[in-house]
Amino acid sequence: MVDIATRVHDHNWKIDPIVRSLLDTDFYKILMAQTVFRRHRDVRVEFSLINRSAEVPLAKLIDEGELREQLDHIRSLSLSRGESTWLRGNTFYGKRWMFSPDFMGWFENLRLPPYHLERRGDQYELTFEGAWPEVMMWEVPALAVLMELRGRAVLRGMGKFELQVLYARAMAKVWEKIERLRRLDGLSIADFGTRRRHSYLWQDWCVQAMMEGLGERFTGTSNCLIALRREVEAIGTNAHELPMVYAALAGRDGDDRALQAAPYQVLEDWSRDYDGNLLIVLPDTFSSTTFFDRAPPWLTDWTGVRIDSGDPFEQAEAVIAWWRGHGLDPKEKRIIFSDGLDVDLIEQLHAAYADRVLLGFGWGTNLTNDFRGLAADERLAPFSLVCKAVSADGQPTVKISDNPLKAMGPPDEIERYRRAFEIGAQTPRAVLV
Amino acid sequence: MVDIATRVHDHNWKIDPIVRSLLDTDFYKILMAQTVFRRHRDVRVEFSLINRSAEVPLAKLIDEGELREQLDHIRSLSLSRGESTWLRGNTFYGKRWMFSPDFMGWFENLRLPPYHLERRGDQYELTFEGAWPEVMMWEVPALAVLMELRGRAVLRGMGKFELQVLYARAMAKVWEKIERLRRLDGLSIADFGTRRRHSYLWQDWCVQAMMEGLGERFTGTSNCLIALRREVEAIGTNAHELPMVYAALAGRDGDDRALQAAPYQVLEDWSRDYDGNLLIVLPDTFSSTTFFDRAPPWLTDWTGVRIDSGDPFEQAEAVIAWWRGHGLDPKEKRIIFSDGLDVDLIEQLHAAYADRVLLGFGWGTNLTNDFRGLAADERLAPFSLVCKAVSADGQPTVKISDNPLKAMGPPDEIERYRRAFEIGAQTPRAVLV
Repeated sequence: MVDIATRVHDHNWKIDPIVRSLLDTDFYKILMAQTVFRRHRDVRVEFSLINRSAEVPLAKLIDEGELREQLDHIRSLSLSRGESTWLRGNTFYGKRWMFSPDFMGWFENLRLPPYHLERRGDQYELTFEGAWPEVMMWEVPALAVLMELRGRAVLRGMGKFELQVLYARAMAKVWEKIERLRRLDGLSIADFGTRRRHSYLWQDWCVQAMMEGLGERFTGTSNCLIALRREVEAIGTNAHELPMVYAALAGRDGDDRALQAAPYQVLEDWSRDYDGNLLIVLPDTFSSTTFFDRAPPWLTDWTGVRIDSGDPFEQAEAVIAWWRGHGLDPKEKRIIFSDGLDVDLIEQLHAAYADRVLLGFGWGTNLTNDFRGLAADERLAPFSLVCKAVSADGQPTVKISDNPLKAMGPPDEIERYRRAFEIGAQTPRAVLV
Repeated sequence: MVDIATRVHDHNWKIDPIVRSLLDTDFYKILMAQTVFRRHRDVRVEFSLINRSAEVPLAKLIDEGELREQLDHIRSLSLSRGESTWLRGNTFYGKRWMFSPDFMGWFENLRLPPYHLERRGDQYELTFEGAWPEVMMWEVPALAVLMELRGRAVLRGMGKFELQVLYARAMAKVWEKIERLRRLDGLSIADFGTRRRHSYLWQDWCVQAMMEGLGERFTGTSNCLIALRREVEAIGTNAHELPMVYAALAGRDGDDRALQAAPYQVLEDWSRDYDGNLLIVLPDTFSSTTFFDRAPPWLTDWTGVRIDSGDPFEQAEAVIAWWRGHGLDPKEKRIIFSDGLDVDLIEQLHAAYADRVLLGFGWGTNLTNDFRGLAADERLAPFSLVCKAVSADGQPTVKISDNPLKAMGPPDEIERYRRAFEIGAQTPRAVLV
C-alpha cells in the first residue's frame, strides 16, 4: 500500500536537499568551532573553494541556480532539538559534556552566513566571509554540495536499471575492500569521507557496510549526523585551519618569531579544551620537518600524531624517532594516517606499523567516493576539491604541507613561511583525491 | 512515514510465499494445457521431480515443513479476476482470444491437485498424480519452489549488507551480459528462466533490466505473471511433455508404428489450436536425427524449430539442410535456441546464424540464476532440477533427447524407443543447468 501522506508531503520539496542538517559535517569542525568560539569568535575570516582538479569543469556541469538552491537550503538549517541533545548528552571519546553550555547556546542559534558565488570560466568562485566560528561551518557542507551536484549531473539521463547497476558495482567494490580489511588483525579504521563523498546516502551506506563487515575494527565516522543516526562513535581530530589562521594573525606585523610559535599556541589552546585521544598533533601545516625540533616538551605527552601529507612511511619514521629521542615507547603512542588512503596503502602501513605503534586510519575519499571505472570517461571519479581559510582579519593564510603540491597562499607569503619555518627541499606527490 | 496498515497486514503472513499466482508459470504450460484439456483431459498422469545434480542434497538443505507450507500455499491459489481478464483479453503473438471460453472456465476453477512428498536419503521424492491438465500445472511452481527454498537456505544467516552486496554483484553480472548482448545487431531474445530461477523477485528484476538494457532486442518473457505486470509479451512454444505422453499412450500395446506417429500427432493437434509464431517444432524428444526424415510434408509450413539439446551448431545445420531439401529459404524460417545458453554461446550462435535464418533465443537459467562465484563453495550455483511426466495412464513415458545424459524412462523402454525411432550413436554433453 502506498503511504499517501508521505507522497503528498514529498510534493512540498522544491529541491532534493543534499545537506539536511548542520550535523551533516565532520566532528572536528565542531570541536574546532568550540575552541575558536572561546578565543577568537570575532576574528573575520574568508573561506574559499578551490578545485585542484582543473579538468573537472564544475561550472559547465552544475547549474548555478541549482547550486544556489542547495546553498540557500543550507542557510535555512539550524540545529534541531534532538541534534542538540545528542551533542549535549552523548559520550564522545569516552567523555560526557564535551561541549560547554555557552558554546551549545551559540550553536543552537547558528545560521550559516551568506555566501558569494560567481562563475569564472568553467569554474565557480565560491567564498564565505564573516566571523570565524560561523564561516568555518560552511567548509564541509559546501564541499559535499559541489561533489554531489557534480555526481547528479553525470547521473542525469541514466536509466533506472543502469543506475541500479552502477550502485551495485560501487557496493561490490566497497565490499571487496572491506573483505580485505577484515583480514588485518587489530585494525582500527574510521570513516573520514564526508567532504568529498559521492552523496550522503552513499556515505551512510558505506558506514553501515563497514559496521557490518568490520565489526570492532570500524571505530566510527567523522560525520556527526551518521554517528547520531547509526549509533556509532563520532571521530575527529583537528585541522590545518587552526594553525593557518593562528599564524596569519600572529605574523601580521612581520613578526616571524610569533609566526613560528603559532602552531604550538594552537596545541596549547587545544589541550585546554580536550584531552585523551583528542590530543592528536597535526604537524604538517608548515611542513613537519622542523615541527618536532621546535616542539615544546609537553607535546610529547600528547596521545599521537596524524600524518596527512608527504610520504607516509618517512613521516611515520620521523615521528617514531622523535618519540624515541624523548625516551618514549612508540607502542604507547598513536599514529593516524589520513592522506590518500586506499586498501593497498592501508595494508602496507598496517604491515609496517601495527606492531610498532598504536595505529589508526581515517579513510576518506576512496571509501565514500570510489566510482572510478564505473562511468564512461571517468566522469564519476573523485577529484580534489577543498574549501580553505584564505585570510584572517585581512591577512592571507598559508599552508605549506609536506607535499609542495598541496601548498596554498600568496607566493611571497609562502616564501616567507618557508624561511620562518626553515623548510628545505620537498618531494612533490601527486594529489589524487 | 510507515504505512501502518501495510505493516499490520504483513503480520498475517505465516510464510513468505514463493509462488503467489497460478500465472507465475511458463506461458507454454497454459498453451499446452488448452491442447490437453481439449483432447486428453481424462488421461491420468504422474509427474515427478528429478534432481539431476545429486551433489545438491535438497533434503538436507530444505526443511520438509517449509517445503510443505510452500506447496500447500500453491494449492490454495486460484486465478484472480484480473489474471483471468488478462488471459481472455490480452493479445498473444498478435492474436486476441487465444484461449477458448470453456478452457478459461476450467482454468478459473482450477486448484492444483495433491502432491506426494517423501524424503529419500538426502533428496526429496515429490510426485503429482491426477488428470493431465491439472497435474501438468504443477511443473513450474514445484521447480521454482525448490530452487528458491534452496537459495533461502544458503542465504540464511548472511548479514544485511553482505546480502545486499551479493545481489549487487549478481546485478552487475547480469548487466555485463546485457551490455554484451546489446552489441548484437538484430538480436531477438526472451526470458525462459522461470523454472530454475533464483527467486521470483530476481527474475522480475532480470526481466526489467533486459527491458531497459536491450529495448526491442528483448522480445518478452515466458513468465505470465511478469508479462502481465511488466506489460511485455508472454513468450512460449511447446515442450517434450506432449510427445512423451502421446507416445506413451499410442505405444501402450507395443504398437511401434503408433509410437513413431505420436510426435507428429502432437504437431497436428497443435496446429489446429495455434498458428503463426507458435508453430515452432521441438524435434528432439525422441532424438531429432530421424525426426525430420519421417516428418509429414505439411510440417515444412511451420514457422520454425526450437533446438533444446545436442550440439546446437550441428542441430541447426541439420534443420537448415532439411528446409533447403524442401526448396525452402531458411532466411524465412526461425530457429530458436534454448539449451544451456549463456552470453558466449549466444554470441557464437548469433555470429553463425543471424544472416542465415530468423533467429531467436530463449535464455533460461544463466539469465535468472547465475549466482556462480557469488557464494562460498558455489552453494548458490544453479543446478539441474526437472519435473517431468513419468507415466500416462499407467504407461511409462520416455525421453531420448539429442543428449543421452538427458534421456529419461525405464531402460527397457528407452531401448524400445531407440529401436522404434532408429536412433544411432549419440554424443553425451555435460548437463549443467
